Amino acid sequence: MMHAVVTIMLKKGVLDPQGKAIGHALEGLGFEGVGEVRQGKVITLEIPDGTGESTVRDMCEKLLANPVIEDYEIEMRT
Amino acid sequence: MMHAVVTIMLKKGVLDPQGKAIGHALEGLGFEGVGEVRQGKVITLEIPDGTGESTVRDMCEKLLANPVIEDYEIEMRT
Repeated sequence: MMHAVVTIMLKKGVLDPQGKAIGHALEGLGFEGVGEVRQGKVITLEIPDGTGESTVRDMCEKLLANPVIEDYEIEMRT
Repeated sequence: MMHAVVTIMLKKGVLDPQGKAIGHALEGLGFEGVGEVRQGKVITLEIPDGTGESTVRDMCEKLLANPVIEDYEIEMRT
């Protein structure tokens, strides 16, 4: 088995209230100068050896990501 | 400004029902042979130049992660 790591972030320009909340909370805790904070998802998948990146891309388009508002990156780890 | 990317995953051994649900959904869509699926969070932070990794570690321990059940990794991007 090999692994695929999929990182899913809201597209630039899509409001990320969760990221904003984290930014404010960090400020409240005394961390100064923190700029934009964005929160996304990471999904690690155990997949059969030899699975192509195109299969994982297919998983992203069909289930893992919402391509309308989210960008995703795929990293294959053998 | 520089960036820190924090990846937060449930520790090994901690049940991840969200990951399991994704695994089942992939199977239902016809993706065969998918093994363990785990879902975590990724947080990107815009921070002042020269901020040390120890400061980001502090953010993780105090707010971003729950060190009892979650592991986190920090990547500094200048």
